[in-house]
Amino acid sequence: MSTSSPPSSAAPVSVLGLGMMGTALATALLDAGHPVTVWNRTPAKAGPLVARGALPAGTPADAVAANPLVVLCLLGNTHVQEVFDTLGDAVAGRTVVNLTNGTPAQARELAAWASEHGAHYIDGGIMAVPQMIAGPHAYVVYSGDEQAFRTHRPTLAAFGGTKWTGTDPGLAAVHDLALLTGMYGMVIGVLQAFALVRTENIPATGFAEPLVAWIQAMLTGVPEWAGAVDSGEHLTDVSSIAVNQSAFPNFLTAYRDQGISGELFEPFQALLDRAMAEGHASDGLSRLADLLRAN
Amino acid sequence: MSTSSPPSSAAPVSVLGLGMMGTALATALLDAGHPVTVWNRTPAKAGPLVARGALPAGTPADAVAANPLVVLCLLGNTHVQEVFDTLGDAVAGRTVVNLTNGTPAQARELAAWASEHGAHYIDGGIMAVPQMIAGPHAYVVYSGDEQAFRTHRPTLAAFGGTKWTGTDPGLAAVHDLALLTGMYGMVIGVLQAFALVRTENIPATGFAEPLVAWIQAMLTGVPEWAGAVDSGEHLTDVSSIAVNQSAFPNFLTAYRDQGISGELFEPFQALLDRAMAEGHASDGLSRLADLLRAN
Ligand SMILES: NC(=O)c1ccc[n+]([C@@H]2O[C@H](COP(=O)([O-])OP(=O)(O)OC[C@H]3O[C@@H](n4cnc5c(N)ncnc54)[C@H](OP(=O)(O)O)[C@@H]3O)[C@@H](O)[C@H]2O)c1
Ligand SMILES: NC(=O)c1ccc[n+]([C@@H]2O[C@H](COP(=O)([O-])OP(=O)(O)OC[C@H]3O[C@@H](n4cnc5c(N)ncnc54)[C@H](OP(=O)(O)O)[C@@H]3O)[C@@H](O)[C@H]2O)c1
Repeated sequence: MSTSSPPSSAAPVSVLGLGMMGTALATALLDAGHPVTVWNRTPAKAGPLVARGALPAGTPADAVAANPLVVLCLLGNTHVQEVFDTLGDAVAGRTVVNLTNGTPAQARELAAWASEHGAHYIDGGIMAVPQMIAGPHAYVVYSGDEQAFRTHRPTLAAFGGTKWTGTDPGLAAVHDLALLTGMYGMVIGVLQAFALVRTENIPATGFAEPLVAWIQAMLTGVPEWAGAVDSGEHLTDVSSIAVNQSAFPNFLTAYRDQGISGELFEPFQALLDRAMAEGHASDGLSRLADLLRAN
Repeated sequence: MSTSSPPSSAAPVSVLGLGMMGTALATALLDAGHPVTVWNRTPAKAGPLVARGALPAGTPADAVAANPLVVLCLLGNTHVQEVFDTLGDAVAGRTVVNLTNGTPAQARELAAWASEHGAHYIDGGIMAVPQMIAGPHAYVVYSGDEQAFRTHRPTLAAFGGTKWTGTDPGLAAVHDLALLTGMYGMVIGVLQAFALVRTENIPATGFAEPLVAWIQAMLTGVPEWAGAVDSGEHLTDVSSIAVNQSAFPNFLTAYRDQGISGELFEPFQALLDRAMAEGHASDGLSRLADLLRAN
């Protein structure tokens, strides 16, 4: 496997980090026919991949030396920086695709480090759980070195869709964090809903279907809120801040009456109260996005 | 219009409360051919409905005297109790369907009051915004007096689907609040996501489509979480509390870095931290629903 082999559908790739996600990424590359070199801090996790044909590397430097394209997926970007520090100039000429979850500022710092050491840096945010990788709904948002991205896009397509967000290396993290923020909100709502129905011994399994259907129905309103957020015009004939602020104490009271914690939703009441105090009674909930920025 | 006319597809109905929702309910009944008597604290709001053939009532008592089926949709249940107090025994023999948003405890109290005054009480939670009423996706969850519900179900079907949840009058509110809780979580996530992308001047309108698609994709995991919540078995191979707890500071840091408030999501970090401290590192996020109850 020569490091100068041109990118192709069988371009060789090194994968650093073999947790749940890194393992899924390396598996997808193997499935797509790519020669794969793998490294993990705890070497045992490479076992199943090596059994499937991956080459184990003893150190991050060995893994990076092996191939022109290097994919990292570690727990956090502090760990990526630690690995980078062991590499130094060994990374020169390589394209580093960092799929570790992080902040825009971290991505910009890692990009600067890579650039100082002669490497091409691409940051990415994986919009999938490991089980979805290479499936029809998985995609990754990328930003950073656009030329390197164009070169390696066919290889990266092994993970799923490839969505370019811009040359500012922080942009993938902005998109990633914003999409995941939307998901975490949904998660918070679903977990609180399950906690609530269980207080009446209503099975969560039976309740899941109407709950998902209802959230899906309410998601149809999201494009309208987006228009309000972009325009700053929040007047609504659907559901006003006044009616929500007036109804929300029922939720906090019911959580308490039923013996579950309201901790996840108390700040929402406070935000509704602030919106009322600032004179937004007749606006829709989209107004709250502005208040989060003005804070 | 005799108050002894049998319920039919054209059964007469009184609607008390003509806000955004009450107006939609009265309109749906008119559209379905029901004679409708209306009352609102601020009489002017009855105008458009009267122009369409509704009969205005001068007081709640007049409205209740007019028809055997009475639908209430006021801002809150304290207002419903205030209206009830003006009625006293005038409500005897009537079926009162209260579609005002409230808590299970409030519904049980109002049912007790109605029963003491010889009325049949049905509590309901509307799973729709006003614009959806009578449309294919709207439905109302009901609980309370089952015989009265069976009698009036054909009339109530004018609003949308009719979902019976049980004879405990509080059950509709439990379902309603739990479904709305799921929605509010989604709303919190979407608003925070919009606030975040706007800090980079990314239009919310363009971001709405991938955001909705991503939340929809993540909703497919909800039935599995429900199974975990019912069984108490939360071990996961998808995304552990450890990985979420470790990644979540990135979100709070990024919100701060980008100049938006993290107030809506700080309690989620605290809950993840507590889950770690209590030894649930390898469990999935579904474990958090148990922690909300244990609190
Ligand atoms: N799981 C998901 O659903 C998902 C979805 C999208 C994005 N992500 C992101 O993908 C990344 C990995 O997640 P995961 O689910 O694979 O987590 P994971 O299963 O916990 O794996 C963590 C990985 O990081 C490595 N690591 C931790 N500390 C290290 C250190 N100090 N030095 C070197 N390596 C270290 C671990 O090595 P050891 O094996 O030696 O511990 C392991 O390879 C995270 O940033 C996560 O946010 C995950
Ligand atoms: N809008 C939605 O999307 C939606 C969805 C599901 C459920 N709901 C629930 O439906 C109910 C009504 O909501 P809405 O959107 O129609 O609110 P709204 O437009 O603000 O209307 C509130 C209604 O309550 C009346 N009211 C307020 N205080 C009163 C009092 N002290 N005495 C008598 N009447 C009083 C108002 O009368 P005036 O006209 O005199 O002020 C008006 O008729 C709420 O419980 C809400 O949570 C709403």
